[in-house]
Amino acid sequence: MDYSPGLEGVIALETRISFLDTEREEIVVRGYNLLELIQKKTYVDVLGLLLQGELPGPREREALEAELLNASVPKALWQLLQQLPAQSSAMDRLRTAVSALGNFEGEAQVKTVGQVAALVANLPRLAQGQPPRSPQGQSFPEAFLFMIRGEAPTPLETRVFDQVLMAYSEHELPNSTFTARVITSTLSDSFGALTGAVASLKGPLHGGANEAVMEMLLEAKTPEGLERLMREKLARKERIMGFGHRVYMHKPDPRAQILKETLKELVRDPEGENLLAMCLRGEEVMREAKGLYPNLDYYAAPVYYLLRVPIELYTPVFFAARMAGLLAHIQEQRENNRLFRPRVRYLGPRGLRVTP
Amino acid sequence: MDYSPGLEGVIALETRISFLDTEREEIVVRGYNLLELIQKKTYVDVLGLLLQGELPGPREREALEAELLNASVPKALWQLLQQLPAQSSAMDRLRTAVSALGNFEGEAQVKTVGQVAALVANLPRLAQGQPPRSPQGQSFPEAFLFMIRGEAPTPLETRVFDQVLMAYSEHELPNSTFTARVITSTLSDSFGALTGAVASLKGPLHGGANEAVMEMLLEAKTPEGLERLMREKLARKERIMGFGHRVYMHKPDPRAQILKETLKELVRDPEGENLLAMCLRGEEVMREAKGLYPNLDYYAAPVYYLLRVPIELYTPVFFAARMAGLLAHIQEQRENNRLFRPRVRYLGPRGLRVTP
Repeated sequence: MDYSPGLEGVIALETRISFLDTEREEIVVRGYNLLELIQKKTYVDVLGLLLQGELPGPREREALEAELLNASVPKALWQLLQQLPAQSSAMDRLRTAVSALGNFEGEAQVKTVGQVAALVANLPRLAQGQPPRSPQGQSFPEAFLFMIRGEAPTPLETRVFDQVLMAYSEHELPNSTFTARVITSTLSDSFGALTGAVASLKGPLHGGANEAVMEMLLEAKTPEGLERLMREKLARKERIMGFGHRVYMHKPDPRAQILKETLKELVRDPEGENLLAMCLRGEEVMREAKGLYPNLDYYAAPVYYLLRVPIELYTPVFFAARMAGLLAHIQEQRENNRLFRPRVRYLGPRGLRVTP
Repeated sequence: MDYSPGLEGVIALETRISFLDTEREEIVVRGYNLLELIQKKTYVDVLGLLLQGELPGPREREALEAELLNASVPKALWQLLQQLPAQSSAMDRLRTAVSALGNFEGEAQVKTVGQVAALVANLPRLAQGQPPRSPQGQSFPEAFLFMIRGEAPTPLETRVFDQVLMAYSEHELPNSTFTARVITSTLSDSFGALTGAVASLKGPLHGGANEAVMEMLLEAKTPEGLERLMREKLARKERIMGFGHRVYMHKPDPRAQILKETLKELVRDPEGENLLAMCLRGEEVMREAKGLYPNLDYYAAPVYYLLRVPIELYTPVFFAARMAGLLAHIQEQRENNRLFRPRVRYLGPRGLRVTP
């Protein structure tokens, strides 16, 4: 029997949720092109589309947004989370928060997306022993960004944040979505599946990449500095985060393209211009040296930075956005379930005997 | 490309840890027959074997046991866990406890196995607002069973519990171990991988099965009652827990065979005799009606019951025992890592356009 490390290229399941069409360079979400959704719709629309299979009508959309805005986290949970050690990482706290939330709630639902946004936004405040900030704003992205910053976003900032949330909302079967479906297949509960997804996303080969990109940009300081840093890393054969993707391989990630345009819109001052110039230079260096294109994380990092999202929240916000896709996958796994239980190729010894 | 639902029969990875040889009906663990280990060795030996690849010598074994017996859970974690809602399930609390432990510790290690045993044993006490019980005993299984019951076990009880722990210690690539390796492949931390494994084990198609077996035995009350209940379930095409196994299919699970013998040793009174008679009757009914053999959970349940382990701890104890195998798999995944990222077969619509 053939064996493909990392299950690369192996079909693990059938789905009606999404598909990465690398030939047409299109991310298909419930039949729509994700890029068109990002340009013309909102995160709340995409959430409705993912969960119900169709874009919500105006009334349904309003009800969804209200559910997100009115979602509240149990007070006892905030108290419990304040007792986690301050030095633990934001993703460790988030994993524990999502697991603990499952002790208070029965099954994850639409309001859970709002609860997770509130938990994510308040992770740094909890670590500092500050009370959580409540949402303020007319829309979900506005309220979410307000909770993160404690400062009302401009309409442009709200729209850009909404687009980032959509860009991260769903992406076929990355490691975290696969983890959630593997767990769900034992008929375990949805909070368990979501907790597993947080654990997966924490890894630097997955969700952790966007934070690594920003650290690199901050270390490099200028376009010339970035080029030097990248060439040093390349010479040492170190991995450079934010480039390439298992599925896209040597083709561009369509989400990176659109966030590059978004970054350009956001740039208003020399700091932003420098960041954009760095990103463009880095993109050139990697294309020329390795034939690799930037992925979503590469352009999401500077966008977050200009939105004044703290770096430790880049991966948690990725999870909050991906809640839409994860809930859809958990639901679909249950509708047509088969326990995931693959086999191994055993390479160890045989026939050893226990000596008295 | 072929597609196998649930990845049935698909080789997902190469391993030197263990292998289910269904032809020879042997569970191979690091080259040894697991049944021989259960008969001649202890859980601490098997833990050493799994982690280091070889059975520990007397001194190494002593050091391992001391590490398990001396492991302590941070006080702040006990306090935090006491604030979880009392009505939440033991597995939801355990998942949260393992995730939270990761906030206090860096990476999982040998002492984590001792910490998890203490957490598992004290789950019911925490839910009732009682302080945790400390370990008492000369050996790890004795101390673990003492913490569960608050009453010193007899030598026979300790030995039987040790055997159950070994029976559950490692089993190739069940859903929970696969989950842990999928998460680890993003280079996430070991507590995240272990947390995902708890979430997976909670499912009734996986670790939750042993509790379902005991509930069925208690409901049936007598051998005749069990036969009636099973025939009713069969007529209604309901799933009967404790029988069959994806990998063993229509062959016996070797672990069930050995625990059946263990159950016989434990039986000392009419209650025990009745339980044994029920199990034997149920085994016959299922073999005759469906050609299915009992799996480990079927005989572990009555063994736990006679050891006076509360039913809500059957699955948590499974996790505590499996810690040995999980740690070995996390370690091996890191030594030769490849990110798990399979693909899907998309069955949904294409080419939909967003209308303004």
